[in-house]
Amino acid sequence: RSGRARIEKMSSEVVDSNPYSRLMALKRMGIVSDYEKIRTFAVAIVGVGGVGSVTAEMLTRCGIGKLLLFDYDKVELANMNRLFFQPHQAGLSKVQAAEHTLRNINPDVLFEVHNYNITTMENFQHFMDRISNGGLEEGNPVDLVLSCVDNFEARMAINTACNELGQTWMESGVSENAVSGHIQLIIPGESACFACAPPLVVAANIDEKTLKREGVCAASLPTTMGVVAGILVQNVLKFLLNFGTVSFYLGYNAMQDFFPTMSMKPNPQCDDKNCRKQQEEYKKKVALLPKPEAVQEEEEIIHEDNEWGIELVSEVSEEELKNSSGPVPDLPEGITVAYTIPKKQDDCVPEVTVEDSGESLEDLMAKMKNI
Amino acid sequence: RSGRARIEKMSSEVVDSNPYSRLMALKRMGIVSDYEKIRTFAVAIVGVGGVGSVTAEMLTRCGIGKLLLFDYDKVELANMNRLFFQPHQAGLSKVQAAEHTLRNINPDVLFEVHNYNITTMENFQHFMDRISNGGLEEGNPVDLVLSCVDNFEARMAINTACNELGQTWMESGVSENAVSGHIQLIIPGESACFACAPPLVVAANIDEKTLKREGVCAASLPTTMGVVAGILVQNVLKFLLNFGTVSFYLGYNAMQDFFPTMSMKPNPQCDDKNCRKQQEEYKKKVALLPKPEAVQEEEEIIHEDNEWGIELVSEVSEEELKNSSGPVPDLPEGITVAYTIPKKQDDCVPEVTVEDSGESLEDLMAKMKNI
Repeated sequence: RSGRARIEKMSSEVVDSNPYSRLMALKRMGIVSDYEKIRTFAVAIVGVGGVGSVTAEMLTRCGIGKLLLFDYDKVELANMNRLFFQPHQAGLSKVQAAEHTLRNINPDVLFEVHNYNITTMENFQHFMDRISNGGLEEGNPVDLVLSCVDNFEARMAINTACNELGQTWMESGVSENAVSGHIQLIIPGESACFACAPPLVVAANIDEKTLKREGVCAASLPTTMGVVAGILVQNVLKFLLNFGTVSFYLGYNAMQDFFPTMSMKPNPQCDDKNCRKQQEEYKKKVALLPKPEAVQEEEEIIHEDNEWGIELVSEVSEEELKNSSGPVPDLPEGITVAYTIPKKQDDCVPEVTVEDSGESLEDLMAKMKNI
Repeated sequence: RSGRARIEKMSSEVVDSNPYSRLMALKRMGIVSDYEKIRTFAVAIVGVGGVGSVTAEMLTRCGIGKLLLFDYDKVELANMNRLFFQPHQAGLSKVQAAEHTLRNINPDVLFEVHNYNITTMENFQHFMDRISNGGLEEGNPVDLVLSCVDNFEARMAINTACNELGQTWMESGVSENAVSGHIQLIIPGESACFACAPPLVVAANIDEKTLKREGVCAASLPTTMGVVAGILVQNVLKFLLNFGTVSFYLGYNAMQDFFPTMSMKPNPQCDDKNCRKQQEEYKKKVALLPKPEAVQEEEEIIHEDNEWGIELVSEVSEEELKNSSGPVPDLPEGITVAYTIPKKQDDCVPEVTVEDSGESLEDLMAKMKNI
């Protein structure tokens, strides 16, 4: 069972043997300006279960620089209704089994795994230390912490650590009936932390373990957990690689296919004193920012083509499009080629190529029709 | 590398060795009334790439009765930026590699794989035959066809076959820039087929291969493909197991976290004569249905508790809740236990249990507070 050799430098060359060609194509498509930057980031994942394991696999396949995995659980056959772990791994620790699979998938990623419960006093200190020093370069903090746990106690521990360290993190969760979930971005001081509006069980200081019963368990589905892991890692990629809109909160209601979004300001009376401290520091930071200039009047748009006044504004001129396309086969009106030929035949496509507008075939066809 | 033994009957017993406990819990939670029915269904998946392979894995882990896989491609290292396949499988046919992995994950599922391109004349006939006869019991049709292909030609072939056979299917797709996707349910005659409103390339009868260029490729992400596979299989589960709202169309725009839904009626001028035939048959079927009775006047709801007139209507009485909960630990106001004890300690929980309201802890807490 042989994996693949390590790759020193990400290449955009389109050959079957290149595991990064489809990711580097995000640059040519105009989605991400510097995809290789993914290799400079370290992400900590707490909880390597139904959501955390898929989250780790997605980041591994995307070529993240380093992953730190925290879990104290063992793989069981009862986990087989979710993606990632396989029956032959039953009995192994989740972090050990995950590391083995993930290294095999992508040997370019660095892994650091911790087989312990972060909520005990001693482990919590060690966890804090690894968040502060476990970055790609030892001594630097990690770039992001992801909470993929299934209980409030662990969420509160991560929240406490991140508030103290001023560490940005994302929370995720799936309901006990398996048909809803959410992800949430928490920037200490800027957005509400987990303690700013805690669940009643946390606010009342109840030990949630006393609420569980023998012989019954929560439901779970690979679909819901796969979707939650997918929207979580998508948010991570957008956050780290600076594209699209990063969501502060995105919910998933599977029964109705409803995806609510929102954002929540921090609570000035938050129980966590480090949250309140981060809020003060954020206020100071915002006060120091230059005042935004008065919004310029928008250029008037002239709508001549249709009675509804709708206009598609092209970011590439027709001339540019023609020049960049190279020889074009004889095609009927409204049809254009899917891809343009890059000018250089080098290993690497130049960082920003004018040869391609980054738009989909459908977008381009719609524009061509409009011209 | 040993997997697990086959299991004759799905059990809801909550033990670490039961791979179905978390799925059978969907019954106790009130989401699905008869989860075991999943074993009676056969699903065909065309295209075992970034979306199809994860779709197959999710259905396998859910314990589907039978999967039929169609693909003619080989696994390449260039596929490693998406979930499922692993580097050591490079060079194997996708269906062969997938079958091996999936059998190992769940030996209770029946697999039938076809390593061919469904669009050639001969293969298309064989494909039609397997859709018609490859059900769980040979000679019966499959229950659902899923399109997870990456080109219009294959989609049109599936569309043609399903229109001729009156076979319900679901379509899926991911954009070439990797940041959007969709799923769609097509019931021939009832909802628009792929030919009812074809893409321009299809309508103009262009060979899409002539639109591709050497040395460039589409972008893809494990996140987007994982989300699309997740919402696809969720729709499959809702359709087959009869829960929640089945979506006719659900889109995913990853840049904005926007999830549009819609439904589209079939086109009476559709180019596909079998689509038009199915439309006629659907009209006849609808005409034969009993007229819906006049909608009864809704019971007036009295709002006494709050000035906004908002009321949560409990489906279980407080008395029922108390009786069903068994001995409850001493808890402060507003907190209740997460699970109730089932009355029987049998292997199987009765089909519909009055012991549990199927609501989440948060729902129940909110209600208790309101009482």
